[in-house]
Amino acid sequence: MSSVNKPGGNYLPVIIHSGIAYVSGQLPRRGEDLLYSGKVGAGVDVPAAREAAALCADLCISAINHATGGEDKIVQVLQLVGYIASAPGFTQQSQVMNGASDRLIERLGDRGRHTRTSVGVAELPRGAPVELSMIAAVRS
Amino acid sequence: MSSVNKPGGNYLPVIIHSGIAYVSGQLPRRGEDLLYSGKVGAGVDVPAAREAAALCADLCISAINHATGGEDKIVQVLQLVGYIASAPGFTQQSQVMNGASDRLIERLGDRGRHTRTSVGVAELPRGAPVELSMIAAVRS
Amino acid sequence: MSSVNKPGGNYLPVIIHSGIAYVSGQLPRRGEDLLYSGKVGAGVDVPAAREAAALCADLCISAINHATGGEDKIVQVLQLVGYIASAPGFTQQSQVMNGASDRLIERLGDRGRHTRTSVGVAELPRGAPVELSMIAAVRS
Repeated sequence: MSSVNKPGGNYLPVIIHSGIAYVSGQLPRRGEDLLYSGKVGAGVDVPAAREAAALCADLCISAINHATGGEDKIVQVLQLVGYIASAPGFTQQSQVMNGASDRLIERLGDRGRHTRTSVGVAELPRGAPVELSMIAAVRS
Repeated sequence: MSSVNKPGGNYLPVIIHSGIAYVSGQLPRRGEDLLYSGKVGAGVDVPAAREAAALCADLCISAINHATGGEDKIVQVLQLVGYIASAPGFTQQSQVMNGASDRLIERLGDRGRHTRTSVGVAELPRGAPVELSMIAAVRS
Repeated sequence: MSSVNKPGGNYLPVIIHSGIAYVSGQLPRRGEDLLYSGKVGAGVDVPAAREAAALCADLCISAINHATGGEDKIVQVLQLVGYIASAPGFTQQSQVMNGASDRLIERLGDRGRHTRTSVGVAELPRGAPVELSMIAAVRS
């Protein structure tokens, strides 16, 4: 959970400006290995997708920690956007995203509470089932 | 229009930090009842989808009002992101989103003017045709 | 590259608040003409989609420049969200978005470095293959 994944392109994992951390979309990977693959509601079931979402949440926190240089610099998670690669007719995106939300609150307490948008998309990079982006308030 | 819908998961409807309100994705519901359902361009036509988008805009305002405790605390709507559950080949996402944009300006005047991104997604939670998230500047 | 496209609906291209510029979703157009059309992985290949993404990045910069009234007011690009209209099974959204990322860094240097989220969506307005939104820090 403490590793920071290298971006999959020409961009930065996190930028902090005026106490706000913008976090790039995180896929459920460990280093270069994508740990989950496929569409939710088809090859990936809800419990697995929840785990994938929780891993993405961990990676958002790791990315911020690495950028701030400290474990407890997150003041408040502000916005979470979750993209769920969805098989036709799959509409339980919220249940999937609860995996991420629960993890944030478990790890950060009230500082992990957040606003959230969950949508079902056609495809995600590398065939991932879940991608998560985050905006959080941090202190230096 | 003054009711605030309970989030569909473990998250908050609005968080305000440093004068910026982040609003969770709003579905076109009244309480637990989803008022519109289906894909735009198939089961849902553009006029109905515009109404759904306008309702989501109302719900964003209601959520902010509830969080600030006042009707007129919105300084400026800054960013609106609209996700339209789209049937294959449906490309009139902008027409749908004008329902939300018109409503914001009708209710808030120049303070309701905003930037906007409209995309057509595969599926939305609970089978909703439209989901809207917002960032707005507010005063305390 | 210096032209600013008229929004495709009742909204503004850019709003600046407290030194942060929110930019509306940009399609790859020149004026009213959409220069690229179709799904990436089907009618549009990756090199063309990269060019489309680079054009969208140019349009984001142009929109900010127009709003600030100056060429070099961008302090730092903070967040880029790229929506790629994807044919079934197309998962190279990151390669497409590198077209936008490379362009930003080419034009703005370190100030163009950014966080990024790339997703594959079902449909985009007017049948565009790529849509880009941006948040950037600017000075007045």
